[in-house]
Amino acid sequence: MATTDAADITEEETEHIRERNCVVENENVVSSIDPKEMRAVILAGFGGINKLRVTKKTMPEPQQGEVKIRVKACGLNFVDLMVRQGNIDNPPKPPLIPGFECSGIVESIGESTQGFEIGDRVMAFVYYNAWAEVVCAPVDYVHKMPDKMTFQEAAAFSLNYVAAYMMLFEVANLREGMSVLVHSAGGSVGQAVAQLCSTVPNVTVFGIASCSKHVAIRDSVTHIFDRNGDYVQEVKKISPEGIDIVLDCLSGENTGKGLGLLKPLGAYVLYGASNMVTGETKSFFTVAKSWWQVEKVNPIKLYEENKVIAGFSLLNLIFKQGGCVRLKTVMDNLLFLYIQGKIKPVIDSLWALEEVKEAMQRIHDRGNVGKLILDVEKSPTPLMASDSTETSEAGEEEEDPEGDIDNKERMPFIQ
Amino acid sequence: MATTDAADITEEETEHIRERNCVVENENVVSSIDPKEMRAVILAGFGGINKLRVTKKTMPEPQQGEVKIRVKACGLNFVDLMVRQGNIDNPPKPPLIPGFECSGIVESIGESTQGFEIGDRVMAFVYYNAWAEVVCAPVDYVHKMPDKMTFQEAAAFSLNYVAAYMMLFEVANLREGMSVLVHSAGGSVGQAVAQLCSTVPNVTVFGIASCSKHVAIRDSVTHIFDRNGDYVQEVKKISPEGIDIVLDCLSGENTGKGLGLLKPLGAYVLYGASNMVTGETKSFFTVAKSWWQVEKVNPIKLYEENKVIAGFSLLNLIFKQGGCVRLKTVMDNLLFLYIQGKIKPVIDSLWALEEVKEAMQRIHDRGNVGKLILDVEKSPTPLMASDSTETSEAGEEEEDPEGDIDNKERMPFIQ
Repeated sequence: MATTDAADITEEETEHIRERNCVVENENVVSSIDPKEMRAVILAGFGGINKLRVTKKTMPEPQQGEVKIRVKACGLNFVDLMVRQGNIDNPPKPPLIPGFECSGIVESIGESTQGFEIGDRVMAFVYYNAWAEVVCAPVDYVHKMPDKMTFQEAAAFSLNYVAAYMMLFEVANLREGMSVLVHSAGGSVGQAVAQLCSTVPNVTVFGIASCSKHVAIRDSVTHIFDRNGDYVQEVKKISPEGIDIVLDCLSGENTGKGLGLLKPLGAYVLYGASNMVTGETKSFFTVAKSWWQVEKVNPIKLYEENKVIAGFSLLNLIFKQGGCVRLKTVMDNLLFLYIQGKIKPVIDSLWALEEVKEAMQRIHDRGNVGKLILDVEKSPTPLMASDSTETSEAGEEEEDPEGDIDNKERMPFIQ
Repeated sequence: MATTDAADITEEETEHIRERNCVVENENVVSSIDPKEMRAVILAGFGGINKLRVTKKTMPEPQQGEVKIRVKACGLNFVDLMVRQGNIDNPPKPPLIPGFECSGIVESIGESTQGFEIGDRVMAFVYYNAWAEVVCAPVDYVHKMPDKMTFQEAAAFSLNYVAAYMMLFEVANLREGMSVLVHSAGGSVGQAVAQLCSTVPNVTVFGIASCSKHVAIRDSVTHIFDRNGDYVQEVKKISPEGIDIVLDCLSGENTGKGLGLLKPLGAYVLYGASNMVTGETKSFFTVAKSWWQVEKVNPIKLYEENKVIAGFSLLNLIFKQGGCVRLKTVMDNLLFLYIQGKIKPVIDSLWALEEVKEAMQRIHDRGNVGKLILDVEKSPTPLMASDSTETSEAGEEEEDPEGDIDNKERMPFIQ
């Protein structure tokens, strides 16, 4: 078979791919230069940011249907925090290399693998293992980058734009004249949503974000509200008839509020549950409590009120549910919009692999506007010298508080 | 203002329209010929079929923005049974004239009313009061019939095709190559769904119906299953990857089954709750029990599974939620398909107003394939002579069992 058929990749197989990429750690050669080795971020166990460190690992080699990518940049997403804490469904067993997306250059090609050549600039969805100097991925998860796209943009593109596109156009059926409310409007998905909404005539975007981001993002949305304020009342003042599409990555009490704001035939889409991340280490009881506190929905109430509630998890869709086959058309449409200049990833900041803790802290604190990128070729900032994560130990049982002082001393490189 | 703006018609106003149409009953002139009077079906109180009878009532006159229609045919829907039993949200107070749709000829036009002329052949959505010789309706609820459409077809068209169209194309986003499962495939909505699916390339329709209807409807669907069998297992055998769209008018245990059958990104649409109609009179406890027995849905489960659950009630949408503004485009699209010969209402049987009990019993027993029509100009069948409903009394407290022998003696007029 010339190419790997994505529809045939089962959950077991993606798990196998993950495990194969995650080769045996070689602790004793951190400083050596071995062409068979690579630097990678390791999550030693579920918990706080001190479970993360950079180490050397044996480089993976591409199997049939795969390409090997020399990674230039990786995307950092809120879901990576949830992985770190173990707050996801069926988490893999640590130690593991986190990360679900990257960009880079094709370095070699597996047997019977078609569609790519060595030297191609690509972006890839990866089932873990993205935060490393080298990644192998099945070709159906790899897409060529447009010439004018930077590696940083490419690492910011795959997950967020595909998620925003599929939610708006495949789940919720966005059309001319509609209104969209998006939580975390300053985040990377929020910014992708706002840009995609602007490609449809006469769409009104209601963005919810921390006040500190309002100046930075006010041009990307029609109306903006403080996440700590009573956004429901403020939205109703502007749009008493309600909203057509609500996109919520928070869950919790926002689910009931979102459903309440919908117009008849409106759709509430839950695409994350970041309210489950409390800033502490994994807690079964925290997760269980969050789960049960979510308001359950009675289908007959939806019937009487003419409402739609949807859940959307792109990672589950493409890595566990065979949804990879849908990626090509979506990515083609998105790259066309990118080439036309209608969409363009907003990069919040660039970080060295060794700065992953600080980068995660920034996402946790919701300090970012747009995407955080791990730039594989970037050196840590000078302040890093006295605080190398390479020397930190895995497997510590005690947890640092997330906002410890050391981490706040290093400023990110803001574009 | 030249026309009534549908968006401005509130629930209170539609209630007012309903009450105005439902004028004072004039019991003593049933057999007289008074030009100010009309025959109408009356529901004297919530309960069994003996709460229904035909009597004379004062004819309504059109107000500003309304047309007066000399009714030729009325549609009978499952929801009319639920109204009869009081099994609906906020039912109006009986006595009332049931019925939500009719066709006929414009007989006069209210002040400042544009868009229609006397003599126009029309079909109308009506908030109750359809089952009468004369109906008044705001122009936004009235649509002109194509020349080749019969009054019987028109009375079968409005609610069922608009509901099927909006569920498939506005709520669930039906596209080429998808699969649709529809319950009550032999019913009038089910047949409309099957026909509309056939207008999209390569759509697979899984129909569920009583075995007795399989021969009659097997050409309208791709696969057909017995409603009393284990349809979940049978569908999974044919389509292990699941279904894109499930349309359910039954509720109850079918909700969980429907959600379980969905593909990732698939949509379950609940558009009725006919399992709530038990064949007995209204029972608060039956309704409450049905409500609470419906499986509640956890939004986070939808997120993990990438699923959509929607509720759709066309009556609530257009009469209580200002959704009338959406009707024109949908109806234009539907009439275009009708004129092209791509869709055509399936008429099960025609009934005189006096035969409404038997017609309702046929729907209750799920004996119909396609639509039951009350033909206002039709005389009751000869067997009717000894069992005139005109002499039956309203307000009886005792309930006849639904399937009493008398009612089964009269055969419907099957087209």
